[in-house]
Amino acid sequence: MNLALNPVAVPASIQQRLHAMPAVAALQLRVAEWNHEGLSLSAPLAPNVNDKGSAFGGSLVSVMTLAAWSLMSATLEAAGHDADVYVQDSSVRYLAPLHEDLLAQARLAPGQSWDAVVATYAQRHKARAQLQVEIHDSSGRLCCTLEGRFVALVPKS
Amino acid sequence: MNLALNPVAVPASIQQRLHAMPAVAALQLRVAEWNHEGLSLSAPLAPNVNDKGSAFGGSLVSVMTLAAWSLMSATLEAAGHDADVYVQDSSVRYLAPLHEDLLAQARLAPGQSWDAVVATYAQRHKARAQLQVEIHDSSGRLCCTLEGRFVALVPKS
Repeated sequence: MNLALNPVAVPASIQQRLHAMPAVAALQLRVAEWNHEGLSLSAPLAPNVNDKGSAFGGSLVSVMTLAAWSLMSATLEAAGHDADVYVQDSSVRYLAPLHEDLLAQARLAPGQSWDAVVATYAQRHKARAQLQVEIHDSSGRLCCTLEGRFVALVPKS
Repeated sequence: MNLALNPVAVPASIQQRLHAMPAVAALQLRVAEWNHEGLSLSAPLAPNVNDKGSAFGGSLVSVMTLAAWSLMSATLEAAGHDADVYVQDSSVRYLAPLHEDLLAQARLAPGQSWDAVVATYAQRHKARAQLQVEIHDSSGRLCCTLEGRFVALVPKS
């Protein structure tokens, strides 16, 4: 996934919703990039460090979950839909400790398309998507992965 | 799991390690109870609320992961072992939104025993355990679950 291609602005409403959550504010999250294919979120190590000097597992999961949530939310909003996105389940693998800032890159799992997700939502006011998120360190080593199922529903008002 | 039976004090070192992590401090975590069978951690809703007024998924995973980590760490420490516990992988299911304070209850998965885990660690200086964590609301409804594999290793320094 090359997020450097054609980055676009993440909708301000998504960023506002992220930063309004106190536990998310503590992560010091930043939207690094979004290009309609993938979205990356970053967070500094310092507020997310564990007792061993590496990134805390809860922060890794939070940043990965939020990257996927932001990607699906931003994609639906860019298509003109006001949707609430929820995570339904996720599997996380912790492969190597991360001793530097967190950068989570989210994308749709293989075999799906955002066009189909958006079309389903437009038709049924509900759509599911399987998303994948990876965190690599700056040497390219894969440190952790998340695969999760997300659902978009019409906001309850 | 009835954590009200024979609660014991969680080692101060475990609590110190929890509270020294900035992202964990933001959760406002409290060790609710530990009785050698299970351990429960609680956190208030306010600092962990999402944009929909329910508990943020990242906080739910963090509290569940830390409950399991604390249970394995405390059990090994109580057996006289200085071990570093790491989460290796986990599966999380979000079943219902939680609109109140978080209370995560961790225990060993069926078919395992802490005696065996401690004996393995004593012999091989490494031991794995499968742990299960549940968060119910106060009406008893199951809101989310985590099942994860944890490993205890000899501290590096």
